[in-house]
Amino acid sequence: MTPIPSSQLLDALNWRYATKKFDPARKIPADLWSALEQALVLSPSSFGIQPWKFIVVTDPAVKASLVPISWGQKQPAECSHFVVFAVKRGLGEADLDRYLARTAEVRGIPVDSLAGFKNVMLGSIEKARAGGYLDTWQTHQIYIALGQFMAGAALLEIDACPMEGIDPAQYDEVLGLAGTGYATVVACAAGYRAADDRYATTQKVRFLPEDVITRI
Amino acid sequence: MTPIPSSQLLDALNWRYATKKFDPARKIPADLWSALEQALVLSPSSFGIQPWKFIVVTDPAVKASLVPISWGQKQPAECSHFVVFAVKRGLGEADLDRYLARTAEVRGIPVDSLAGFKNVMLGSIEKARAGGYLDTWQTHQIYIALGQFMAGAALLEIDACPMEGIDPAQYDEVLGLAGTGYATVVACAAGYRAADDRYATTQKVRFLPEDVITRI
Repeated sequence: MTPIPSSQLLDALNWRYATKKFDPARKIPADLWSALEQALVLSPSSFGIQPWKFIVVTDPAVKASLVPISWGQKQPAECSHFVVFAVKRGLGEADLDRYLARTAEVRGIPVDSLAGFKNVMLGSIEKARAGGYLDTWQTHQIYIALGQFMAGAALLEIDACPMEGIDPAQYDEVLGLAGTGYATVVACAAGYRAADDRYATTQKVRFLPEDVITRI
Repeated sequence: MTPIPSSQLLDALNWRYATKKFDPARKIPADLWSALEQALVLSPSSFGIQPWKFIVVTDPAVKASLVPISWGQKQPAECSHFVVFAVKRGLGEADLDRYLARTAEVRGIPVDSLAGFKNVMLGSIEKARAGGYLDTWQTHQIYIALGQFMAGAALLEIDACPMEGIDPAQYDEVLGLAGTGYATVVACAAGYRAADDRYATTQKVRFLPEDVITRI
């Protein structure tokens, strides 16, 4: 692979901001959107389990219906592509088996050869279930995907707005997730900033490096 | 800014993997490491609060001391730069005031002009505290930073290994976090893969796009 110059990474991360007002007329070109979907698929996760579904909403009526269950924020309606990040709750052996079957398929190996790996994973998830932190742990992975998605979008010069101010239970109803085992965690609007989004020119605020980084 | 070609983003995300064995002789050049630290500083977070500290460990003795409290995994010792992601527990008004003082400083505005924003944030964090999910919410932000860090590293052709298999309480002791209000959440080793890390050539396993992406 060919690395990018570090200045280009920082330019993109400085350029991005939580876009409040999208230009509803500008849509993300299909090839770029496809790349962002692939970035979602490629997100890292614990054990590689990928405990998620990504719901990509572009239907105008559905997008509009998300506004009232997003504290009235208009980004779901005005953006180009709206992504809802859902986690698999109560992860269990069937999820592991599905993952291992896929592993065997991709690597061309017998699934039985993965029995040791399965036991390690099963031990971890059963310990987490007993400890009451299984869903919390898997939800953390969702935020890795969100972080990768936002960074990827910025590098492609696509605007985004992460949204935690949503009603997850109502999202689950609207998106047909209720009863599937998958539950809405967070969302991210993607598209292009409106020319008059005043937040686009507001100076980004970050603590000084010495206030957040400690070197040992 | 100049976007990167989407193929370059995907090349990097396909190139990366959770590096099990680093080349202990290869160090990340200072200019590239500086860029990755800046990527950490630039990570998005709820309200922009940045509820974190990033502890960058390069001291060989400290790195080695992390191995036994990382389930014996050698990445902390063998990598070039080891980053520990710590969250501010029990976020409170003093944290908001520090953030607002920084905002006023960066934007050259009176801090009093941010009173409305402060009230919104305070309402949210007090609601979260009452609901028992304040630390969980802030911990989610840590994983956004981790996701951005891993994506950024890959784009710079730097290897990384996210590590949840660590003992956070013991990390807090070793790193001097105990009693500071900051607590270890997760870590990430960064550096360069060893020539004989067999995981480097193991086929990456991801579900098919149609199995994780739903389009509406």
